[in-house]
Amino acid sequence: MTINVTVWNENVHEQEEPDVADRYPDGIHGAVADALEADRYSVQTATLQEPEHGLSESVLDETDVLVWWSHCANDEVDDDVADRVVARVHEGMGFVPLHSGKNSKPFKRLMGTSCRIKYRHGGETERIWVADPGHQIADGLDEYFEIPSTEMYGEPFDIPEPDRTVFISWFEGGEVFRSGVCYRRGRGRIFAFRPGHEAYPIFYQSEVRRVICNAVDWAAPNEGATVRWGEVDSIERLEE
Amino acid sequence: MTINVTVWNENVHEQEEPDVADRYPDGIHGAVADALEADRYSVQTATLQEPEHGLSESVLDETDVLVWWSHCANDEVDDDVADRVVARVHEGMGFVPLHSGKNSKPFKRLMGTSCRIKYRHGGETERIWVADPGHQIADGLDEYFEIPSTEMYGEPFDIPEPDRTVFISWFEGGEVFRSGVCYRRGRGRIFAFRPGHEAYPIFYQSEVRRVICNAVDWAAPNEGATVRWGEVDSIERLEE
Amino acid sequence: MTINVTVWNENVHEQEEPDVADRYPDGIHGAVADALEADRYSVQTATLQEPEHGLSESVLDETDVLVWWSHCANDEVDDDVADRVVARVHEGMGFVPLHSGKNSKPFKRLMGTSCRIKYRHGGETERIWVADPGHQIADGLDEYFEIPSTEMYGEPFDIPEPDRTVFISWFEGGEVFRSGVCYRRGRGRIFAFRPGHEAYPIFYQSEVRRVICNAVDWAAPNEGATVRWGEVDSIERLEE
Amino acid sequence: MTINVTVWNENVHEQEEPDVADRYPDGIHGAVADALEADRYSVQTATLQEPEHGLSESVLDETDVLVWWSHCANDEVDDDVADRVVARVHEGMGFVPLHSGKNSKPFKRLMGTSCRIKYRHGGETERIWVADPGHQIADGLDEYFEIPSTEMYGEPFDIPEPDRTVFISWFEGGEVFRSGVCYRRGRGRIFAFRPGHEAYPIFYQSEVRRVICNAVDWAAPNEGATVRWGEVDSIERLEE
Repeated sequence: MTINVTVWNENVHEQEEPDVADRYPDGIHGAVADALEADRYSVQTATLQEPEHGLSESVLDETDVLVWWSHCANDEVDDDVADRVVARVHEGMGFVPLHSGKNSKPFKRLMGTSCRIKYRHGGETERIWVADPGHQIADGLDEYFEIPSTEMYGEPFDIPEPDRTVFISWFEGGEVFRSGVCYRRGRGRIFAFRPGHEAYPIFYQSEVRRVICNAVDWAAPNEGATVRWGEVDSIERLEE
Repeated sequence: MTINVTVWNENVHEQEEPDVADRYPDGIHGAVADALEADRYSVQTATLQEPEHGLSESVLDETDVLVWWSHCANDEVDDDVADRVVARVHEGMGFVPLHSGKNSKPFKRLMGTSCRIKYRHGGETERIWVADPGHQIADGLDEYFEIPSTEMYGEPFDIPEPDRTVFISWFEGGEVFRSGVCYRRGRGRIFAFRPGHEAYPIFYQSEVRRVICNAVDWAAPNEGATVRWGEVDSIERLEE
Repeated sequence: MTINVTVWNENVHEQEEPDVADRYPDGIHGAVADALEADRYSVQTATLQEPEHGLSESVLDETDVLVWWSHCANDEVDDDVADRVVARVHEGMGFVPLHSGKNSKPFKRLMGTSCRIKYRHGGETERIWVADPGHQIADGLDEYFEIPSTEMYGEPFDIPEPDRTVFISWFEGGEVFRSGVCYRRGRGRIFAFRPGHEAYPIFYQSEVRRVICNAVDWAAPNEGATVRWGEVDSIERLEE
Repeated sequence: MTINVTVWNENVHEQEEPDVADRYPDGIHGAVADALEADRYSVQTATLQEPEHGLSESVLDETDVLVWWSHCANDEVDDDVADRVVARVHEGMGFVPLHSGKNSKPFKRLMGTSCRIKYRHGGETERIWVADPGHQIADGLDEYFEIPSTEMYGEPFDIPEPDRTVFISWFEGGEVFRSGVCYRRGRGRIFAFRPGHEAYPIFYQSEVRRVICNAVDWAAPNEGATVRWGEVDSIERLEE
């Protein structure tokens, strides 16, 4: 069964910062799409600059899993498009926000919290530990992997208690962070994955690419049960 | 320690329907406030019709727990006031939506789901079972209590998996419902309690009043730890 | 990928009660095995009466998912065999206790609670509502299904708060019950499913058979990550 | 309301290792009991060497919260005493295992998992971050505190997904660990707290003492609801 994946990117740093453009000549979305190379995926990309940010109703209707990268332009996402993403997640679309996608409107609306963190630029080592080695998103990983140079995110991460905490990061500078957390909202599965600052070639790293594939596999919708909402008649006969 | 409680009510049915006005001459907010009679509570009320719906920044700042009744006017609540309530919950204010308060803007924004249900008017018996007898919100209850005549709410209830499910209802007409569910968002505790249709004298029933008191006690904020958000220096010395 | 399923049954009622033998001429294990007819399953059965209850180390090592029916002989299960089942669940084997399997030694040891309930014999209608319509275990179901005549189980069910509550039952006699609940322990997935009293032909009912297949699919192990337990050297250089 | 606390200690290192005896002249139990000095506590201690390990039925019946330190003698705890502790937790007694108490029979039986970890002796810095700043157990703490020299515990920690993760530790040697995790089993609250190796004066540190007090306050039982287990008559009239 093919999984239809849409990789969304705000695509701003790549336009404005030559070093990012050099690092990601096809955009971060291009690098992430490239990670999803297996036959079981059908991948398209979309960016902020397109009409409706490339996330029209018909695009979302045909998307099984939406992978989302955003950072400096989180506020520029149209409210209606953000609500449309949220509604599709409720219907079953998987949602995989990467890095500052944790600050995106769809993720914050799905969480109901501020999603605030502490952070530090400059580049330092991150060691991502698998806290839940039985989880599908950890398939094929060693007990940890390292990102040699990255932005730091530190706890507390203002999110609801996760359904599962798959990864916890150790940072050289002294902090920790829940780097991979799972949720369900409506019928949709959500996996927020921390790594991915634009200043580093993180999306070329094999472990990161493996996690993104695993997350897409995990987040793909299933059939589920039928539901009737709204006013209904009684099943049992009611006493007059 | 006194708990400052604000009981909010949209206060519309009481103005428009004589039988509701007869049933609740001081408004539903008046009946709920009356349930919170003990010395440990300091109670005030607020309604939709007041400026800022009676929920100004200063009122919310001084509120430990906000009890909320709403139904037909959920859409009339100002977006900014709804966001202000959400922000105060994140800071620690308890939030206890009653009945269709599960459709209120603050609750839906805190949950991140549609909060849809099925329902039926007409009046039928509801038997509310304690599913979590060790929970503080069940203190002093028998293993179940009944509401002799009420509106039905039926599963599925489109909410995130609750932190704790305290009550599950049996309905005469054949449905079930998770009638008392607990969450945390940010520092704030949330308890959604199903009973309370305006067409029945439910807020005079002793078990319902006991649950509301227990929920307020449970949802009252505690001190917690200090937090620093945003950009921070490293604690450990970073390699150059 | 074939899923290796072992269907275990205490197989006592079938030997001692002619009506049960008539209803389940191949044993309850035979009827459950028959439900797992699809090509993707490789099914074998095992019973209490066999050496090591048919659950030798080698049988368990080759089992992906263990489906378990027990009732009157829960105490006759050897402690070492129960511990062996628990250890295999920790390693990743799925475990699907049916009916009074919720009182089995392996399930109680995995839960850490008493798993007590209230119950009633005699036969009454159970309506099993899907509370989590997005869950894989609910795939292909309508919003509820009914068991026309069954034993009742009532709340409170003394279990840890479930990871997911897939089904909630309504009983004609006035009770409710969390009839399908999900857990993880170690790498293993656990789904406890309520229906299945020996006095009724429940395991021939299509919805029950569909749920068992869905549960086996859901509980099948995945690869996961490698783990090192025990004493380890430091990764970072420690200050002397 | 006074909280009756029993502080249990295996009390072996203190007898066998002079440096531990010097560090904890009244035993680790003495130091922990000393931390619970406030008027709201009534504290007694018990050790492995006493008859029934000092945990007779009557002692446990009068205990609201059991704080538990153990390490090298976990296997010497009598099975019946361990089961008695578990049964009392189900009835509502709080349970606060410290350090290798996570390997104790009662904790492992309450969790249903192996509770395995990785570890390292030698002494290194641990920085304990508050991941859940709104939790009562974090009351009065700064966003982190440090233990200057301690044994390391590293992820993965083979426990069920916690109800709440209050603390996450950063270790100098490169690991992370969920150092404070909350559960409920039956009516009883459980908080496992990592720090406390016998080779360091950890139980004299103010933050550690504060956490133990907070945990005892949080774990103290409440009234709850009444429950009837076992066979019951129907509430509704059943069709013949």
